[in-house]
Amino acid sequence: MRPQVPANPVYLILGGARSGKSGHAEMLARAEGNDLHYVATAQALDPEMETRIAHHRAARGPDWQTHEAPIALVECLGQLSSRPRPVVVVDCLTLWVTNLLLADHDIEAAGAQLADFTAKCRFPLFVVANEVGLGIVPDNALARRFRDEAGRLNQQLAAAASSVIFMTAGLPIQVKSTS
Amino acid sequence: MRPQVPANPVYLILGGARSGKSGHAEMLARAEGNDLHYVATAQALDPEMETRIAHHRAARGPDWQTHEAPIALVECLGQLSSRPRPVVVVDCLTLWVTNLLLADHDIEAAGAQLADFTAKCRFPLFVVANEVGLGIVPDNALARRFRDEAGRLNQQLAAAASSVIFMTAGLPIQVKSTS
Amino acid sequence: MRPQVPANPVYLILGGARSGKSGHAEMLARAEGNDLHYVATAQALDPEMETRIAHHRAARGPDWQTHEAPIALVECLGQLSSRPRPVVVVDCLTLWVTNLLLADHDIEAAGAQLADFTAKCRFPLFVVANEVGLGIVPDNALARRFRDEAGRLNQQLAAAASSVIFMTAGLPIQVKSTS
Repeated sequence: MRPQVPANPVYLILGGARSGKSGHAEMLARAEGNDLHYVATAQALDPEMETRIAHHRAARGPDWQTHEAPIALVECLGQLSSRPRPVVVVDCLTLWVTNLLLADHDIEAAGAQLADFTAKCRFPLFVVANEVGLGIVPDNALARRFRDEAGRLNQQLAAAASSVIFMTAGLPIQVKSTS
Repeated sequence: MRPQVPANPVYLILGGARSGKSGHAEMLARAEGNDLHYVATAQALDPEMETRIAHHRAARGPDWQTHEAPIALVECLGQLSSRPRPVVVVDCLTLWVTNLLLADHDIEAAGAQLADFTAKCRFPLFVVANEVGLGIVPDNALARRFRDEAGRLNQQLAAAASSVIFMTAGLPIQVKSTS
Repeated sequence: MRPQVPANPVYLILGGARSGKSGHAEMLARAEGNDLHYVATAQALDPEMETRIAHHRAARGPDWQTHEAPIALVECLGQLSSRPRPVVVVDCLTLWVTNLLLADHDIEAAGAQLADFTAKCRFPLFVVANEVGLGIVPDNALARRFRDEAGRLNQQLAAAASSVIFMTAGLPIQVKSTS
């Protein structure tokens, strides 16, 4: 008799600004369970970001537990691993890269650690990330480096994920699927 | 006996600059009928825009009636509704957002009105829109707000449309299809 | 008896910065033969570009012959035609547009010539190009012109190619396929 294997999807959800990434991640997450965790990498450093964060939190509703992990993302996911069956949205990878870059952390090492966690992850995980490389080459060197690091990390996570989705105008294009 | 329902496609055609959006919209429109209407949201405010507009108009050919609707887009579509079987291209949604933003109109209300019209539209309609959210975060706040509004409107229209296409290098990727 | 026709794929591989375009082109090329040629359009005009070029060259490994063709791309491809069965990667079209633009060449004529060569190409050819039109409209006129020219050339090449791929996060989305 074939044992019933619990579904354990690990998604990377890519897209541009206002493409519906977060909403899609939350919808997919809700279908996986009730112990809902939202890991935010955003830091409310200015009023504009505060407004965005408050807007997102209100839109999610009260049945989510929010965790802030601007830098210590892998540690936060590790702590959630101790729960019986958490369902986790990480939003988003690209702000994490920004935070690591500004704090002068080793992005390649951090990315490898996250990809490693993701590949072995034992709970449903939905990672949101921005695709930022489809405009013209930025003027300044820091923006170019950020663009390179964000793109590289997206590639690492996409390789580790079981499913990859590219969002446009609120609609998903399935790019990778292992099922 | 099942009545013959007239085909009534409502398309949102997304893409970047020079991705072939307008050409694809015009090709799809021609296949739907002969009473061809082109609703332009562009305003020739400077020589560069004048050149672009003249170039587009020449490329379309003489069998299109051109209407200018930089702000009053829904009203213009409403007037076209009185014709027996118009076929309409709107080009483009993103310039409309720019115009609304610069004229300090309520973009959310205008967008809701347009989405409502679109969902009930009784003639073939092909709406062209730019995807503008796939580069790095813009430096200035107005550009960020524009990007947010344009993305939100794309999501609203995509939800109301029967088909959504993402263009790249002149080629369509079908993102939504109800047929 | 039907003669065995040698496979002769001509690919356009589109994508953003760090989307895995070059790696995917190289992987597809290796599957086609051993006489591997890498036609680089990059010019090492500053230390940042030198580092990028050296990084790419090291990642490819020693079994590629590298040719530099910042401007004379069609001529370079013409010379490779004299070999029995070359397999060629061009990386990338978008830097070629930049070079033509800065040297004040006729981009439309050069693009038409390349598209013509591509459509008749008798060896496996993998052309890498950036999609640069999916961010907000650039501030300065030169960047807007570059974006237009790059987009137009992508359309020409996509029409001439037998396959077109759009890369995101290292993963391919097949946009055109003639097989």
